[in-house]
Amino acid sequence: MPDAHGPSAGHVVTVIGLAGIPELDETDDLALLIHEAAIRVGGLQPADVVVVAQKAVSKVEGRVVRLADVEPSARAWELAGADGDPAHVEVILGESREVVRSRPPLVISETRHGFVCASAGVDASNTEEGTLVLLPLDPDASARRLRERLVELSGVEVGVIVSDSFGRAWRQGTTDVALGVAGITPLRDLRGELDAGGRELRATQIAVADELAGATELVMGKARQVPAAIVRGVDVRGEGSAHELVMPRERDLFR
Amino acid sequence: MPDAHGPSAGHVVTVIGLAGIPELDETDDLALLIHEAAIRVGGLQPADVVVVAQKAVSKVEGRVVRLADVEPSARAWELAGADGDPAHVEVILGESREVVRSRPPLVISETRHGFVCASAGVDASNTEEGTLVLLPLDPDASARRLRERLVELSGVEVGVIVSDSFGRAWRQGTTDVALGVAGITPLRDLRGELDAGGRELRATQIAVADELAGATELVMGKARQVPAAIVRGVDVRGEGSAHELVMPRERDLFR
Repeated sequence: MPDAHGPSAGHVVTVIGLAGIPELDETDDLALLIHEAAIRVGGLQPADVVVVAQKAVSKVEGRVVRLADVEPSARAWELAGADGDPAHVEVILGESREVVRSRPPLVISETRHGFVCASAGVDASNTEEGTLVLLPLDPDASARRLRERLVELSGVEVGVIVSDSFGRAWRQGTTDVALGVAGITPLRDLRGELDAGGRELRATQIAVADELAGATELVMGKARQVPAAIVRGVDVRGEGSAHELVMPRERDLFR
Repeated sequence: MPDAHGPSAGHVVTVIGLAGIPELDETDDLALLIHEAAIRVGGLQPADVVVVAQKAVSKVEGRVVRLADVEPSARAWELAGADGDPAHVEVILGESREVVRSRPPLVISETRHGFVCASAGVDASNTEEGTLVLLPLDPDASARRLRERLVELSGVEVGVIVSDSFGRAWRQGTTDVALGVAGITPLRDLRGELDAGGRELRATQIAVADELAGATELVMGKARQVPAAIVRGVDVRGEGSAHELVMPRERDLFR
């Protein structure tokens, strides 16, 4: 990573929230709204990474279902338990390849994309009463489409991440992670690089895209209508897919 | 979180690497080195969070063992398998309350502090040949000591996080998380807050301290001798412990 300030000045990364983007639906051009919000904070720059909240992406892609249209299965009734909504659980099951763990009404599952997360990413907050928002069908493709349009509008080769808040095994609280990426390398591979003592580094891959997503949560929040942010100062340009961030099943010790 | 720029300008967070800190050992005053490095980038400001890499903290605390001094047990030989170093695994077992999963030579365990991570945080990179660096005995206490000294030196009420790179279940690559905190609230609790539609938010706790730690990894890296960084623009002042970030055993579905 180049450091224009020299070794004693310290490398600087800036995270800029993109505010003033209204409530979204399928009629909106999200990339245009992001572009306009970016102009209000001085515009995009080369190697910027634009992180966009999954919910914003899902809404403009029409990934919304009405609970009233859902017929819960017996399994959904069972997994919902006394406190859950079977229709909500049915939607989660529809988005899941496999239930990994459950404790009614909590369901942790593998999504159609291969992500393991709570509720298959299905969410009821910040959405119209009686509706649920689903994850995009192909978040890498969503990121690519946003990136193409942003590059077209701004003339700047930015990277794009579609982010969501995931819980973690063993740790409390969510952190934002990358569900889809375009124009960036999501993992930094240190294999072969040397440590300060000249020995090869072993803890070898860093999930930079997840750290970028987490950093933008700090300016996005859930309740503040800031559905996107820019990260400036981390050059992760490249070609990659968020699937690189998914642990291959054969190496996964926790399923 | 107050936003001095108004809703259309976007909230800004800055992450500043603290470079020029030499290789460390027990003779070093880490807080003084951080204070001096901070002065070179303009000094600390109120509500800044200083994130310090665990390895730097462990080295000045003397949490280093020589492999030559270690007598591997039968269990260490077994868990090391054909490819591992039984002495290294013995050190990991000494730092562990319980082995959660193993696949020789990989050991995932619960540390004495309650963290679940690979190798109980024991690390061989960026350390003297033939030695291993262990996690601090009490990372919250390490953070408190650093904070007290930094406040004394700078006159500024900063927060402190001691960070480390942890792998995750189901996802590839490490992200930096908080092992110890002082002067900050590690979780942001949204329970009771309302979404943009006026309904109560459900995904209720955000692991802000982990997102802060992850953001600083973007400027620290492993091979670049930048063992600390400042995050500016996220007001998390409060009293808390990194133990709040550990999932209570009775709620943990993955042990």
